[in-house]
Amino acid sequence: MPDPRIVIYGPGSTGLAITKMLCDRGVRPVAAIARTGSKTVGKDLGELAGAGRIGVIVSDRADETLAKARADIAVVTISSYLDDTLYGIFEKVVKAKADVVTLAEEMLYPWVTAATLSRKLHELASAHGVTVTGTGHQDGYWVNLVGVLMATGHKVSQVSGALSWNVDDFGKTLAEQQLVGRTKEEFEAWKKSTKRKPTFGAISLYALAATARLTPTGAISTDTQPDLATSRVYCKALGKYVEPGQLLGYTDTDTMKTKEGITLRISSCGKVYVPGESDFNKWVLSGKRADGTNVRLQMLNADLPTAVTTCATLVNRIPDVLEAPAGLVTIDKLPQLGHRPSLAARSSEA
Amino acid sequence: MPDPRIVIYGPGSTGLAITKMLCDRGVRPVAAIARTGSKTVGKDLGELAGAGRIGVIVSDRADETLAKARADIAVVTISSYLDDTLYGIFEKVVKAKADVVTLAEEMLYPWVTAATLSRKLHELASAHGVTVTGTGHQDGYWVNLVGVLMATGHKVSQVSGALSWNVDDFGKTLAEQQLVGRTKEEFEAWKKSTKRKPTFGAISLYALAATARLTPTGAISTDTQPDLATSRVYCKALGKYVEPGQLLGYTDTDTMKTKEGITLRISSCGKVYVPGESDFNKWVLSGKRADGTNVRLQMLNADLPTAVTTCATLVNRIPDVLEAPAGLVTIDKLPQLGHRPSLAARSSEA
Repeated sequence: MPDPRIVIYGPGSTGLAITKMLCDRGVRPVAAIARTGSKTVGKDLGELAGAGRIGVIVSDRADETLAKARADIAVVTISSYLDDTLYGIFEKVVKAKADVVTLAEEMLYPWVTAATLSRKLHELASAHGVTVTGTGHQDGYWVNLVGVLMATGHKVSQVSGALSWNVDDFGKTLAEQQLVGRTKEEFEAWKKSTKRKPTFGAISLYALAATARLTPTGAISTDTQPDLATSRVYCKALGKYVEPGQLLGYTDTDTMKTKEGITLRISSCGKVYVPGESDFNKWVLSGKRADGTNVRLQMLNADLPTAVTTCATLVNRIPDVLEAPAGLVTIDKLPQLGHRPSLAARSSEA
Repeated sequence: MPDPRIVIYGPGSTGLAITKMLCDRGVRPVAAIARTGSKTVGKDLGELAGAGRIGVIVSDRADETLAKARADIAVVTISSYLDDTLYGIFEKVVKAKADVVTLAEEMLYPWVTAATLSRKLHELASAHGVTVTGTGHQDGYWVNLVGVLMATGHKVSQVSGALSWNVDDFGKTLAEQQLVGRTKEEFEAWKKSTKRKPTFGAISLYALAATARLTPTGAISTDTQPDLATSRVYCKALGKYVEPGQLLGYTDTDTMKTKEGITLRISSCGKVYVPGESDFNKWVLSGKRADGTNVRLQMLNADLPTAVTTCATLVNRIPDVLEAPAGLVTIDKLPQLGHRPSLAARSSEA
């Protein structure tokens, strides 16, 4: 099979990291689309990505570029939630008869939190014979590794994940969103007043439940706790110090109950790190031995390079999306996430 | 779908642990077969398993029992390697039109190390419209978790696993096989003279390569190193002390090179534990960031309850085997290993 024809839709830092990975693997994207006004427009995608000139000039004319590209798939790295804007972008790609693979976090399992747009997108993609799938770091670390782990346990009653990400890796907007440098009183006032979108953790629990063939009962509950500085810590993203007692960030804990009696929980901490801290992903499953005594299954991914895993997972999902049936196809319906030496779709054997 | 009709073929300690897990999940086996002379013959399978009387009497008449059982699947826990004896047992089950799921370690991926019998078994199973699959602890911890991890890395060049198991959990035969209490000189003499079967680690590397779509080049190399006692350690399995300088056991390191340039390696240590040691499973992947710098992906499963994971994995694989096409179907061809609340085969949606 020939290499897939790939469009990069959103050549921001993540889109460019994916571009570099694709070029490293010998698969050069055939087109790139940015929003009007982006500094990337008119530049060579390969040069922007640090992969050398590839003769693909970033365009802000989406329809024209998609029509010319005859793409098999578009990599969409624009935003996190399935709203009307993101739907509009997917619609352009789908109508150009290309599959979509996206890092939009809600797209990992949008069926519950964005039900109406999900159904509409599923119908649109089905009608045009293409696949739309969300993936990313969570696909591996919050869903598939955990799903495999669950298969190795007996009478598992609780599945609990804890993970951490560094606000300083993601810039000012996210640092402000994580309330870095605010007081505990400001945090409590924010908690009372805010109407937040579903957390990425909550969305991943839906995907995990579907993967483990569990049926959620009722809504996911979300608890949010501040992470307070105990010493003076410099926040690179804000360019200022966080004083003792102020927030380094906060931790969201999402809990899902299921009809099968298994509780799924994920605690996600986004904060400014103090020296020695790094991203991790840790899961503990409470289960039983055959003799009825309690036992725990544990997994720790320490020093986790989240920027790598996010992009590499998307790249390795490309053949799965190319081979999948038409529609909005979430990861619970895809084959096992795995390393793919070739990004081309395989024969029907797959 | 109704619950599957399951035969326990080999009600030893592992077969009985699986029986207990099945009963816990509300799926009572319908028959049990042991070798003539086994102490289990004539006893109630449920009582032997600690699950209470279930009215299934262990029989040593395999053909008659299989004919009566109208089983969907047999759980075969007899031996480790696909030799003529094990083939003969599979043949009885296959001719009775039941699927086979087995913990025989070589059956995880017997295509290379037992090529002739594998092909013969594949033809036999295909002709009778049933599936034969090997699974167990390795399915999760040495293959599928690692396979997912590999999908999250970029330009992975080396995948290295290290794991440990306690000789004292497995009795005298295995303790003697691991040379517990022998001298370093005896170990070296054994290494020169012995003609060993492929290690379980080597077999799992073939399954991992198939899962990660890699092509092995040449044979797997196996290196074996002694683990020497530095203080006096009691070996329960042998009922004697290991003196300083004598072997607590040994570590096999298997290395596979692949056409794609990725080296797969697994080090398996089987020894008598000193206080504070427990089973673990640890993997490190060497890869690159998009910018070309080196990065590592890590996974650690500490305090691993291998007896649980071995049996629970087999139980959760039952629906996959029931749903699989006919033939010898290795785990690289099955759906993602996952938690299965129901052990029944699903509709074609699966």
